[in-house]
Amino acid sequence: MDFLKPYAALIESEIHQLQLPGTPETLYAPQRYILSSKAKRVRPILTLMAAGMCGESIEKSIPAALAVELVHNFSLIHDDIMDQADSRRGNATVHVKWDASTAILSGDGMLIQAILQLQNLPPDVDYKKINRIFLNGINKVCEGQASDMEFEDRLDVTTDEYLEMISGKTAALIAVSLVMGGICAKADDEKLEALNEIGYSLGKAFQIQDDILDVIADPEKFGKRKGGDIYEGKKTYLMLQLLEHCNKDDKNWLINCLKNKTINDDDVLRIIELYESYGITDEAKSVMNQFYAKAEKALQLFEETKYKGDLSKLINFLKNREY
Amino acid sequence: MDFLKPYAALIESEIHQLQLPGTPETLYAPQRYILSSKAKRVRPILTLMAAGMCGESIEKSIPAALAVELVHNFSLIHDDIMDQADSRRGNATVHVKWDASTAILSGDGMLIQAILQLQNLPPDVDYKKINRIFLNGINKVCEGQASDMEFEDRLDVTTDEYLEMISGKTAALIAVSLVMGGICAKADDEKLEALNEIGYSLGKAFQIQDDILDVIADPEKFGKRKGGDIYEGKKTYLMLQLLEHCNKDDKNWLINCLKNKTINDDDVLRIIELYESYGITDEAKSVMNQFYAKAEKALQLFEETKYKGDLSKLINFLKNREY
Repeated sequence: MDFLKPYAALIESEIHQLQLPGTPETLYAPQRYILSSKAKRVRPILTLMAAGMCGESIEKSIPAALAVELVHNFSLIHDDIMDQADSRRGNATVHVKWDASTAILSGDGMLIQAILQLQNLPPDVDYKKINRIFLNGINKVCEGQASDMEFEDRLDVTTDEYLEMISGKTAALIAVSLVMGGICAKADDEKLEALNEIGYSLGKAFQIQDDILDVIADPEKFGKRKGGDIYEGKKTYLMLQLLEHCNKDDKNWLINCLKNKTINDDDVLRIIELYESYGITDEAKSVMNQFYAKAEKALQLFEETKYKGDLSKLINFLKNREY
Repeated sequence: MDFLKPYAALIESEIHQLQLPGTPETLYAPQRYILSSKAKRVRPILTLMAAGMCGESIEKSIPAALAVELVHNFSLIHDDIMDQADSRRGNATVHVKWDASTAILSGDGMLIQAILQLQNLPPDVDYKKINRIFLNGINKVCEGQASDMEFEDRLDVTTDEYLEMISGKTAALIAVSLVMGGICAKADDEKLEALNEIGYSLGKAFQIQDDILDVIADPEKFGKRKGGDIYEGKKTYLMLQLLEHCNKDDKNWLINCLKNKTINDDDVLRIIELYESYGITDEAKSVMNQFYAKAEKALQLFEETKYKGDLSKLINFLKNREY
């Protein structure tokens, strides 16, 4: 992943230079804390690459890149409260290190800081347009998170509803990251549409892959226990496909597991076996590959540049990741 | 308050016409719920008046007026979680009617909807400028809320710190409401500065008045029990002034009350007596009146119009409110 290093270094340096005030400490310390934790910075890197692919210097898109990274971190702070997650990237989550009120408020503050970053774009960038794209993207993320929470109490979620949910929760911000880079470069509508397509396809592929890796990855490398999603009774792509395709007896048993929210080690092993016997994992891999292929196809619209090459490498790297 | 009715009716009608999507329900139902509750709509009315005072049709500022009302409601949803408040305007709060996760998320969504309203301003309004003013104002509200929460665990809060806190928590959004109206009317910097001054003075006067009314208002009319702030151990303007001006014995007793967070009926009566005997209530009234006078003075900059007359009446009404 050496080709990503210069992009990541640029983002880290810019984050380091962010001038967040010192006080009130309960507002700003959590923002500094989460921004200083080790992260891959995939979204802002996509913004830089998109600007480069559309013929602009990547530096011009830095405020937009920072904006998406800050919004991503805002959503992590708030999602971790909702999901009652204790740790993130190896560190205590904000609501655990401080408390829920501090996490709510510092998340709010971080969202505002994110949107404020766009004020730093050069005057020739269409501020109203980039703001609209950004805000609508964040709203889609909220919609996705709401659907995800609603799914917890439902046993009749369809695969289509799932794809719609991850379009918001995971893919919308990835699409926005790319489109904002394009807007900074004054790309035409055709190119913006292609960037949008790359983002949504990539986001959906990535999320389905996460669902697959939950049952096939080496837990040591993946950093999560095998079948973690199953233990939690999550409605992943695999689980929904299994529910749609298995026989009546298996379905009744599955529904019972999900209803009672008591899934033990044996249940997890049996569910993983069912994934195999019904060909669910292979089908999911095929859908994932279709989304990666859609992203690669949309990428063809762009001229050959170093940035296009780098994005192509990044897509390829993600496609082949094993954790 | 008949003179306010046409403004309030316009705002209600515009809120009624807001096109929030139907689903996901957990994202949008709470937003519709809080917007439909009975409210005074003071902030958006100030935006309309400011636009009118600066020579513009008030209709032009409607998107900005909606934006401040939506942000106000966002802050209510999140503050009520932090303050563990069960009811608001006679209705169950969002986190009680639904749950904390739904309240966090729908609050986030409402904040985005608020900022999106500015997209509907006519193209001749300086979008980047009005956005900057708005976002910085919301950030000040977050700062104020953070300081207020920090004060809960401190016994050495000064009156100056308190004034700084309410400048954020209460006054910043009132100032922003007025300034945004001015920006919609393309007012010059002198007028914008005067609107800002009116807003901050009005906001601080209003908050200190709330602190005073807690101990002198008719609880029936005020809608809160007498001394409610004292029972909660709140560091109000009166409490901080008392701590600064009382003798050592009274101070030790007070500090003890606040430390142990056990304030009973007798304690409340004694504290109200101390407010009287040390002249704290009168001093607070005097400071409140100074802030109202500052607002009225800044208002003099504007030409005589119906809108200036209405704002003057509104200030006068607030100054003389008894609950």
